[in-house]
Amino acid sequence: VTCVACHGQEGIAAAPQWPNLAGQHASYLTVALEQYKDGSRVDLVMNPLMLPLDDAAIEELAAFFASQPHLHNTAQ
Amino acid sequence: VTCVACHGQEGIAAAPQWPNLAGQHASYLTVALEQYKDGSRVDLVMNPLMLPLDDAAIEELAAFFASQPHLHNTAQ
Repeated sequence: VTCVACHGQEGIAAAPQWPNLAGQHASYLTVALEQYKDGSRVDLVMNPLMLPLDDAAIEELAAFFASQPHLHNTAQ
Repeated sequence: VTCVACHGQEGIAAAPQWPNLAGQHASYLTVALEQYKDGSRVDLVMNPLMLPLDDAAIEELAAFFASQPHLHNTAQ
């Protein structure tokens, strides 16, 4: 829910400093979120956001964004 | 050139542990590559690959992958 403020309801980021997540591989997203949670990937926003999430919640978020359809050329 | 072995010629990753880069925001990709270069983002493959690249080369790579059109639903 907080995710969409930066990454968009459909995984297309609201501003170019944040990554689009739509159609990203779920397994890549899962690893990224796990790394934010354990601190091995550092981001001042993402690190604290992941702390309360368990594995199931992380996998659910990854699956959600992976399943969002791409929009063409939004990043250009 | 080495990039495409994992991330695909058009930015669609060859396997789900690697991120798709097609249509990702160029400014996000630039920051990611700079972080891999300076070691603030850790990845055993990406860190050494970035060492020889200067700012112009990093921006060129980011712009290339950002400009690749998305393919629909490749990640599902």
